[in-house]
Order: sequence, then C-alpha cells, then structure tokens
Amino acid sequence: MSKKVSQAVIKRLPRYYRYLESLQQAGVAKVSSGKLADMLDITASQVRQDFCNFGGFGQQGYGYDVTKLLNELASIMGLDEMHNMIVIGAGNIGRALAGYKGFSNEGFKVKALFDIKTDGGGVGEVPLLSMDELEDYVAKNKVDVGVITTQANVAHDVANSLIAAGVCNLWNFAPIDLDVPKHVTVENISMSESLYVLSYNIKRKQKNIKKIDKD
Amino acid sequence: MSKKVSQAVIKRLPRYYRYLESLQQAGVAKVSSGKLADMLDITASQVRQDFCNFGGFGQQGYGYDVTKLLNELASIMGLDEMHNMIVIGAGNIGRALAGYKGFSNEGFKVKALFDIKTDGGGVGEVPLLSMDELEDYVAKNKVDVGVITTQANVAHDVANSLIAAGVCNLWNFAPIDLDVPKHVTVENISMSESLYVLSYNIKRKQKNIKKIDKD
Repeated sequence: MSKKVSQAVIKRLPRYYRYLESLQQAGVAKVSSGKLADMLDITASQVRQDFCNFGGFGQQGYGYDVTKLLNELASIMGLDEMHNMIVIGAGNIGRALAGYKGFSNEGFKVKALFDIKTDGGGVGEVPLLSMDELEDYVAKNKVDVGVITTQANVAHDVANSLIAAGVCNLWNFAPIDLDVPKHVTVENISMSESLYVLSYNIKRKQKNIKKIDKD
Repeated sequence: MSKKVSQAVIKRLPRYYRYLESLQQAGVAKVSSGKLADMLDITASQVRQDFCNFGGFGQQGYGYDVTKLLNELASIMGLDEMHNMIVIGAGNIGRALAGYKGFSNEGFKVKALFDIKTDGGGVGEVPLLSMDELEDYVAKNKVDVGVITTQANVAHDVANSLIAAGVCNLWNFAPIDLDVPKHVTVENISMSESLYVLSYNIKRKQKNIKKIDKD
C-alpha cells in the first residue's frame, strides 16, 4: 500500500467507482475485469494491474464482488469522510459552487466563500467573508480544500495566501498553471482549455465540410 | 494539414497559446522550442513534432516569432471566430455559465438557457427557454455548442435531444460518460472526478502523517 501509485491510476479510480455504482443500482453482484475494462476502454490486464496497486480485491476468474469493490474504493478514495471546502472568489462560478448541493454525494461541503468585497452577501447557509479573515478562519476551522474561482491575474496570490494559511489542497478554476510547493496538491478544472479543444474541433469539421463541397 | 492530429497534441495547443500570450504581454518577440518545451514540461523535439502537424511555423535554431505563432495557433484553433452556445439545465452551474462574461475571450457566447421549468427567468441578456422550444431554436439560430449542466440521470436524454436537433458539439458538465455518434464531439468537465482525485490525495496525506507519528 505504501508504494507510489501513478496519477493515471488515481484518475481512473473515480471512473471505476462510477461504473460500479451503476452496476450496483442495476442489481449486479459480480463483475469481471474484462467487463470493467470494456467500460473504461482499457485492457483487462490494465484493470488487474490497477487493482494490484491496492492489494488485489478479488480472484481472477471469479470476478469481483461489486459491493465489496465499491466499499474498498470508497475507503481508498476517502469518500467515507466529509471534507470541508472554502471558495475564494465570489463571482458567478464561485457563487454557483457555494450553492451547489451535489458535492455532498462526493463527501465535500462548501463552508465559506471569501472575496475582497463582501457586499454581495453569502449563498444560502454559506457566509461571504473578507479575504482579511482568511488566515484566522483557516486557523480556527478544518479546511481541507481551497477552491480558487478568481480571475487568472490574482489566482497565484490567492493560492499563496491559502498555502500560507495552511491549506494544502487546491481546486483551481482559474485559467492558469499554479506553481506550488511539493506538499500542496492542485486539481485543475480547465474550462478555457476545454473550450479551445471544442473550438479546434468545430474548425476541423467546417474544413471537412468545405472539402466535401469542393470535391 | 489533412492528416489526423492526435488528441494529445490538440489538448496541448491551448497551453502553447496561453504561454505565448504571456510572453507577448511581457514583450518577448522570439521563443525557442526548448523554452516552450520547458514551459509545457515536454521535450523540445516534441514541440517541433507538434508544430509539424500544422506545417512547421519557423526555422529550427532561429526560434519562433511569438506574435506570428500566436496568430497561427488562433487560426488553427478557430479563436478568430465567435461560437454560439446554448446551456441546458438552469441550475446553479448552468446559470453561472450563462452569466459568465469570460467566455468571450475564448470566442464563445451563451445565447440561451433551456430547462423544463422556465419560471426562474433568464440571466442578464440570456433568455430562459422551455425544452419544448429547443428543436425550433436550433433550426432558426446558429448553435455551435450545447452545454449540458443537468443531473446525470437526464444528461443522456438531453444529449440525444441536442444531437437530434442538429447540435454536433457538446460541453458536458454532468458526471456521466455520454455515448454519442461519431460525428459528435464531447468535451467533459468532470468536477466529481476531480473531487475524487483531491479526496484520494487528502487521504494519502493523512496516512503519511499517521505513519510519521508511529515511526
């Protein structure tokens, strides 16, 4: 369990979890590595390798017990614990995240929203606090994740403030790569990169259509 | 230009673009493949290979002209065109996206918001329309991208409605893998998967701390 697990494997765990949940809901008790492999578009050998990182989970040929596997994965991913988040940046996205109820399914809860200006007020039960209160808030409350939903040009300062206050896990929505110390984890939601990829695909399709028109 | 470019290369284009923008803003005129490689954490040879997919861009040893490269990338990615989006699902995230001004920098604009219930009203200039009006709206207006911000359990139906209406590019925020025809492009924003990865990392850090305590 102590060996280093690759980021690629870690990123597949949520997908295993999601598929197993749908199998459980459909009343399926056992699942083969081949079936899981099909669902994730990888090989059965890759599935078995992935699970070996965590000590196995089942015997080859008999299939995995769906409920047992779900529980194991939940424990490995820490989904059996509740994590507290604070959101920095009370714009549209920040306020939407503060008001979003869906995170509790994943074991996350937004506890406070921070911004330079606090005249907009909080979102439901989530208070809007001033950035001046950040350090004190983090000292007095359990904060597992700092969510950055500011403009790109201040995102680095915000990250530094969070790290200085003692927050070691950042969820970054700003379109910038954050340069952080080794003990800090950053997960990026890159909306603008995703839009660029869409834009590229739209352009490519237009070209193909023009090509067909010419032929 | 007509050969198939890999998804990995396409996903790197926005990152090249972003770094080149920051270089241009800093007044840098020329950049080497080595410098770009450092910024993207890949090799210089990979950078030259990537650019070869699009016919080069510059001479090895002389470096690339930053402004010229930016313009070339913008054209390849279709950033010189405006794309219209419609958002399906008027919850917190859907309304935030409808009200977000930042997309115009990437050449995207939300034109309408759709939901089953329309009693909430629109967001700023973006009207909230009924799902019953979707087909007619897409027939009468240029819609480049359909954004899905519904719950997972209806996301597939929404995707099918969009595709049936003639929308070929989907931006999916629902925590589900959409199964779509070959001509349809899907870009996923996987917030729940991102949270699971954070959760895993928090758990791993807790374990390390406990291990240190025991030693």
